[in-house]
Amino acid sequence: MTFNPIDIADADDPRIAAFRSIRERDMTGREGRFIAEGTVVLRMLAAAHAQARGFHAEAILILRSRLAGVAEILACFPSEVPVYVAEPAVFNAITGFDMHRGVLAIGRRAEAPGLKDLLATAPPLVLAACGLSNHDNMGALFRNAAAFGAGAVVMDRTACDPTYRKSIRVSVGAVLTVPFAREGSIETVIGALIAEGYALWGLSPRGRVALDAIPPAPRTALLVGTEGEGLPDAIMAAIDTARIAQAPGLDSLNVATAAAIALHRIATVNGLVG
Amino acid sequence: MTFNPIDIADADDPRIAAFRSIRERDMTGREGRFIAEGTVVLRMLAAAHAQARGFHAEAILILRSRLAGVAEILACFPSEVPVYVAEPAVFNAITGFDMHRGVLAIGRRAEAPGLKDLLATAPPLVLAACGLSNHDNMGALFRNAAAFGAGAVVMDRTACDPTYRKSIRVSVGAVLTVPFAREGSIETVIGALIAEGYALWGLSPRGRVALDAIPPAPRTALLVGTEGEGLPDAIMAAIDTARIAQAPGLDSLNVATAAAIALHRIATVNGLVG
Repeated sequence: MTFNPIDIADADDPRIAAFRSIRERDMTGREGRFIAEGTVVLRMLAAAHAQARGFHAEAILILRSRLAGVAEILACFPSEVPVYVAEPAVFNAITGFDMHRGVLAIGRRAEAPGLKDLLATAPPLVLAACGLSNHDNMGALFRNAAAFGAGAVVMDRTACDPTYRKSIRVSVGAVLTVPFAREGSIETVIGALIAEGYALWGLSPRGRVALDAIPPAPRTALLVGTEGEGLPDAIMAAIDTARIAQAPGLDSLNVATAAAIALHRIATVNGLVG
Repeated sequence: MTFNPIDIADADDPRIAAFRSIRERDMTGREGRFIAEGTVVLRMLAAAHAQARGFHAEAILILRSRLAGVAEILACFPSEVPVYVAEPAVFNAITGFDMHRGVLAIGRRAEAPGLKDLLATAPPLVLAACGLSNHDNMGALFRNAAAFGAGAVVMDRTACDPTYRKSIRVSVGAVLTVPFAREGSIETVIGALIAEGYALWGLSPRGRVALDAIPPAPRTALLVGTEGEGLPDAIMAAIDTARIAQAPGLDSLNVATAAAIALHRIATVNGLVG
């Protein structure tokens, strides 16, 4: 496949309207669209597009000086995806901020599988998150889920959108590779996991057993709560829970860091990583 | 101890000159001064001050609406530390940005123990970092070091300053509680660790043994490299190295996350956390 860069000399060119003022626009995440920024995420988007993982690119905008460096990636997109090229002054006038490193794409998430369909694929390790509201933490959770081979991330509907620009960037593109569902209440998510035969473990400083006591299982789901409040008491009481041994009297670990420690342990005892 | 809030009605008041435009000023970290922001870090600074851990407060600036909420913490500082209070318009005019949550202090780090003196205190677990340049990662490293009872963080002189405002904030104040040294080359740091009898383990995706193979030892030091390059080949060849099992073909874990996983494991097998 090839690409034919289209020069953009005017920030008001209607062809690049979707890129204008993306800092505000991407907060909404409306109509399934999202912003991919940087070389690493662009490469992940190309792979997700090619492998029909439910994401595709609608348009790409590249700073002229970055074009040669990403040509190989751009060639991986279908030729109908337009590649726009602009000089720095025009580029910054279009995007309104300078955090993009000169590599941006508008992506779109297709109709994704629902919670039940996703779990029916039976990934041996699933990460579940309840009420997560911080986009950095969401991105880091996906990065760690990918690192330890989690086959899905499932969230209640109050969780923030993983396809927010910053989450995708912090995830190093893992949001585009790890299938996820975000729907229903946390009770719905838990019910679906149990119905599919998952051994469900809540992770909390108040967990009843040590992390190393989580036994191997054909399907394990790890549930994490928000950083501030953690898991609600009612959920803590209803499911098995584990804790990470820590020095006494300290603020708890970051939620994504805690999840990484637990996912690593579960993946190791189940032989999912090597 | 008590405190007597001093009203500041003019952003140009010379008494609060140290707080002006701190976003730029704190990048320099000159003369051992640093910026502490937010309630959690202020509480850690008060504790560090009271316990003579080598940090003390020079001045505190509080948004009036936050005063009641932090009064208990302010009362923990010696009465000679001035507490300035301002309304929002003046506060923002002083500080030049709005990320402070209305709670700021200027702190100063006293002459700290050098690398050798610090290691001579023989903490059972030490975190060593080589060439770390990202302030977020530095802060997260300290947070994780504290969580798993590391008694010191030792760095080469090319590492970034942990007392930069953002590092302190990301560390949730752990920069003020975990003793650290930053001096010399990484070879100097490694030499000092070995001279003090530390079992030294480099952490890398190319590590020669799995993390779980690190044996218990009276003193263990974990060495991490920069996120981009990791540990230099010469160092990898010269010391024992361990890897964290991960899914194949992925970008490696964040350096602070990887350190957390390894510190948790080392602290657990040595009985340092429960």
